Amino acid sequence: MTTGPTIVDVSLRDGLQNESVLVPTADKIRFADLLADAGVRRIEAASFVHPKLVPAMADAEAVLAGIHRVEGVSYSALVLNDRGLDRALDAAVDEINVVVCASDTFSRRNQNMSTADSTRIAAGIIERARAAGIFATVTVGTAFGCPFEGEVDPAAVLRIVTAAHAAGAQEICLADTIGVGVPPQVSLLADRTRAITGPDTGLRFHFHNTRNTGYANAWTALAHGADTLDSSVGGIGGCPFAPRATGNIATEDLVYLLDRGGQPTGLDLEALIAASGEMTMLLGKELPALLPRAGGFPGAVG
Amino acid sequence: MTTGPTIVDVSLRDGLQNESVLVPTADKIRFADLLADAGVRRIEAASFVHPKLVPAMADAEAVLAGIHRVEGVSYSALVLNDRGLDRALDAAVDEINVVVCASDTFSRRNQNMSTADSTRIAAGIIERARAAGIFATVTVGTAFGCPFEGEVDPAAVLRIVTAAHAAGAQEICLADTIGVGVPPQVSLLADRTRAITGPDTGLRFHFHNTRNTGYANAWTALAHGADTLDSSVGGIGGCPFAPRATGNIATEDLVYLLDRGGQPTGLDLEALIAASGEMTMLLGKELPALLPRAGGFPGAVG
Repeated sequence: MTTGPTIVDVSLRDGLQNESVLVPTADKIRFADLLADAGVRRIEAASFVHPKLVPAMADAEAVLAGIHRVEGVSYSALVLNDRGLDRALDAAVDEINVVVCASDTFSRRNQNMSTADSTRIAAGIIERARAAGIFATVTVGTAFGCPFEGEVDPAAVLRIVTAAHAAGAQEICLADTIGVGVPPQVSLLADRTRAITGPDTGLRFHFHNTRNTGYANAWTALAHGADTLDSSVGGIGGCPFAPRATGNIATEDLVYLLDRGGQPTGLDLEALIAASGEMTMLLGKELPALLPRAGGFPGAVG
Repeated sequence: MTTGPTIVDVSLRDGLQNESVLVPTADKIRFADLLADAGVRRIEAASFVHPKLVPAMADAEAVLAGIHRVEGVSYSALVLNDRGLDRALDAAVDEINVVVCASDTFSRRNQNMSTADSTRIAAGIIERARAAGIFATVTVGTAFGCPFEGEVDPAAVLRIVTAAHAAGAQEICLADTIGVGVPPQVSLLADRTRAITGPDTGLRFHFHNTRNTGYANAWTALAHGADTLDSSVGGIGGCPFAPRATGNIATEDLVYLLDRGGQPTGLDLEALIAASGEMTMLLGKELPALLPRAGGFPGAVG
């Protein structure tokens, strides 16, 4: 049996940032501890963005300060600019994740700057993070499609990959921000990204299950050399462009797929299902994940 | 661009047989016509089983009699025994689908006979159907796992495949009856089934998305030579072993995956989404399919 990929749980960052319910800081801290207890080894715990733009992340410092740091677990935060990096460094994160959107229109609407400017700023952040001894990831947003521009040219994605690699990013994450991607896009972008970065740079994917392609995409990514996948407990993570749509691929469902699929994750499925129950209560609604409804296998019924 | 697989819509059979709501016969007939209008070319419209065991299928004759038969569309029914075949032939179906469950315990509970007896009976049905000029499929149920026995030995599945092929089945369908399958099972069973049947027998899969592996399984099946996939509009199809679980993979979500994934189905996604809206009203609840919530791409928002 091969060893499965690393899972980055993004429940507390991408998962919560678009939810209408504001989860109290103490509950976020408790949830991060639940994740570590369930065996998650990379936790994206917050986003250091302007609190007026993303109110759900206004307590980023308090969350990072409150989490009981577990040996062997890496705590990460998303940053978009130098001010965000300053805050992340002050909060003693283990790693940072810088986002650059491949769609220029999306970049201007989301980050108020062009893709080219965002790429330049990301390179500077990567260099500063590396100098500070922090593991640094560049996530390419809207890599599979844009709600404003439609199809996104893979060349636009790969330009960002090339710049991020040159700046010293230790990991590239390709993100299907709005959940429109399909497996042939995944294999193409995985292969071409790997050709640019070589084998020593991490290759990570971020999928949403908005149109039920997320798990097929995840499986395809692993077949094409991805070593790391993002997911959120319960599959939380609303999308402002499709209010009724589902969110990230769910950590517990991904663990079922991988563990039963011969790529063991080392995570505790029952503990994740319990954490999903906690999140269901925090958000006060049924979540998209299916394992909590169906139960594992074998041994679920009978 | 290659041509995509054939989709067998099973909404009216597997989709409705476990729903607590009994859909009126006239609505089933209207729904079959909606499917044909949306471009579906194979419609599994009913199950000729004992009405006391499956009340939702008690109107099978009336449904088949009422459907406006469209040229080029094949109307199918599920049968389990000779009495069922008699009824299906009287109803002038274009094809039949005989189920044999690979798990002996499941077979005894579901069909009140052993897998070995069921295999023998299926062979006889196939021979009679062929003699009557009807296209005949054998579906191997619980091919990916059993709620009572747990793991199912692929050898048990392949014994049924061998017998069905010898009896003249024109198509083999491998069914994940309870939605526990993962891609490595799919590729193994697809390859070994093809090795038994050769290239001239149809290779079809029936997936449930109970644990969010259904679409990854579907994609894997196509990569391993499957030519036909089952699905239901809205992803309907309850599971008596997991009351809150989701059903079959959804026709509209599968069409999105395949059309955008370079395997065009020829189906009309907008018409399917409209049909899904009809089914939502007939069953009075939100359905598992995600395309009706998220919208297609490109062109969904912006």
